[in-house]
Amino acid sequence: KAYQKARTVTLIPGDGIGPEISAAVVRIFDAAKVPIHWEERNVTPVQSPAGKWMIPHSAKCSMDKNKLGLKGPLKTPVAAGHPSMNLLLRKTFDLYANVRPCVSIAGYHTPFADVNLVTIRENTEGEYSGIEHVIVDGVVQSIKLITEGASRRVAEFAFEFARKNQRGTVTAVHKANIMRLSDGLFLKKCREVAENYKDVHFKEMYLDTVCLNMVQDPTQFDVLVMPNLYGDILSDLCAGLVGGLGVTPSGNIGANGLAIFESVHGTAPDIAGKDLANPTALLLSAVMMLRHTGLGQHATRIERACFDMISDGKARSQSVLTPARSRKLYNTILLEFLVHK
Amino acid sequence: KAYQKARTVTLIPGDGIGPEISAAVVRIFDAAKVPIHWEERNVTPVQSPAGKWMIPHSAKCSMDKNKLGLKGPLKTPVAAGHPSMNLLLRKTFDLYANVRPCVSIAGYHTPFADVNLVTIRENTEGEYSGIEHVIVDGVVQSIKLITEGASRRVAEFAFEFARKNQRGTVTAVHKANIMRLSDGLFLKKCREVAENYKDVHFKEMYLDTVCLNMVQDPTQFDVLVMPNLYGDILSDLCAGLVGGLGVTPSGNIGANGLAIFESVHGTAPDIAGKDLANPTALLLSAVMMLRHTGLGQHATRIERACFDMISDGKARSQSVLTPARSRKLYNTILLEFLVHK
Ligand SMILES: CC(C)[C@H](C(=O)O)[C@@H](O)C(=O)O
Ligand SMILES: CC(C)[C@H](C(=O)O)[C@@H](O)C(=O)O
Repeated sequence: KAYQKARTVTLIPGDGIGPEISAAVVRIFDAAKVPIHWEERNVTPVQSPAGKWMIPHSAKCSMDKNKLGLKGPLKTPVAAGHPSMNLLLRKTFDLYANVRPCVSIAGYHTPFADVNLVTIRENTEGEYSGIEHVIVDGVVQSIKLITEGASRRVAEFAFEFARKNQRGTVTAVHKANIMRLSDGLFLKKCREVAENYKDVHFKEMYLDTVCLNMVQDPTQFDVLVMPNLYGDILSDLCAGLVGGLGVTPSGNIGANGLAIFESVHGTAPDIAGKDLANPTALLLSAVMMLRHTGLGQHATRIERACFDMISDGKARSQSVLTPARSRKLYNTILLEFLVHK
Repeated sequence: KAYQKARTVTLIPGDGIGPEISAAVVRIFDAAKVPIHWEERNVTPVQSPAGKWMIPHSAKCSMDKNKLGLKGPLKTPVAAGHPSMNLLLRKTFDLYANVRPCVSIAGYHTPFADVNLVTIRENTEGEYSGIEHVIVDGVVQSIKLITEGASRRVAEFAFEFARKNQRGTVTAVHKANIMRLSDGLFLKKCREVAENYKDVHFKEMYLDTVCLNMVQDPTQFDVLVMPNLYGDILSDLCAGLVGGLGVTPSGNIGANGLAIFESVHGTAPDIAGKDLANPTALLLSAVMMLRHTGLGQHATRIERACFDMISDGKARSQSVLTPARSRKLYNTILLEFLVHK
């Protein structure tokens, strides 16, 4: 079958615990006989002669060729020296939609069961435009840039996603009562796109109202689409509701299927190299990647093993579900679930 | 004693359920013999001959004279016609700090007990500058304006507040990793002010991280200070954790003690005039006002009656704690608590 032909994926292990959790994922994929060939690259930033920070050439070429990447955590830039590589990757490959499913995990207790929502964040502009000026001493402006094109394509992505995944509702999250022109434009595009998806229910809500309702009853939400910064905030809030960044996957999607999947937790330098790090978020990101590239059966099998392992409780402890505190047992136990169930 | 001399307060009952809940507060204050004289004003916006929207003259004069106001909910502007009166009030009187305590209420079950935090929001600039442009068709920019002066004074307010209220920690909430200049300036001022308050612990956290931690364990937070939009979001999120906008008070503080206290829930037009509305948020806002103006003993007595009533459960029902669904029993029962306990 076509999907059995090995597909090459750019693997960016990242910093800190990145290499360990990447190795864990590679091993699990091997054991599951996933038809994927990994091409490992690092993205330590390089500077052009003109001083521009860039993704290293070989990583850029690899992604351009493979169109699919899996990425561990990257160090945050220490001084104002170079930009965040996470942001540079999104920009370089025009990964315009950030998709983060937040689903309650059986066996992991949180105040809310049955959370099952997806945040879809515009990933290229808004408050992240990077345009700032000092007007006069002591007066600074940052520019939030909203365009018709970027708003439309992320709205289209959200509705397409909802339709494909049999999800009933897309909610546009905004502050158009305050930012009438910018959030107003974003909202207008969402409304227009909604017209073409009569099978998906469309709702509009203020960001503050969404936050308030989210912490009172997150089960009322389904697919949410929003400008960049709001997505940054809301995706973390929602991750918090189901267990944190150690258990929530993330995918950055661009045009023509180009995509990078990543865990969004930190590099946990304190435990790096000690084989204590928890690979769940990266593993679930890799599972998202499998679905994205048409390897849905493999995705389902690995995902089930992962959730079974967690709910079974054998490998469970607070630590297994916290990015920075886990067991090296993880792999062994997950492999058992994979093979024997 | 000085504080027994009646103080005049501008009362802005507002729209929808505003008049009823204002009347409830007035009656409770009467019964408690609070030395306050109310001067009722409405703030339906008027337009200058040049087309500028303004607070009506008599409301403006009343506030200028009394320097203290209590306000119910106001209708949101329907079309882009006139600006939000809430925002215009903050601007007109330069009410630069918005203070919202979020405290768990005994007898009202939420996923977290022992929440006891205060959000302090810069209330005059940032994303709420109202400066927006269409650059070319389909490209819009909104300007977030951060100034040294406004950042410093809200930081000073937060540390002063923490010191006065024996609160140990002030956390500055920001995205200076993304908005390096604007949030960077805000953060710099917080750091500088922190130097003068060695008795108060100072912390810095990213907004996304705060949201994530907030929904996992809000009890770790104390006083939080932040730019305008972040405060809008975080104050609603925190309100959600303790019961919603129907039970959380709010104060907008300006220079020289000038202040307007308000409930921040909506006007609930569906139940307006039916004597069903719940006055808790406005009552607790009025209690904040009493403390602000040196009437702390009255504040404590009324607040205790309110919380006793809630925890006693006689008037309790989901509805009593939801802004739009309550009982006319509320007043009667609260007065009983006030008088007999
Ligand atoms: C690492 C950081 C620049 C990034 C962001 O702010 O977008 C992170 O918080 C995220 O959500 O991916
Ligand atoms: C009414 C609205 C303009 C206001 C805001 O966005 O600030 C409200 O949400 C608030 O928090 O007071």
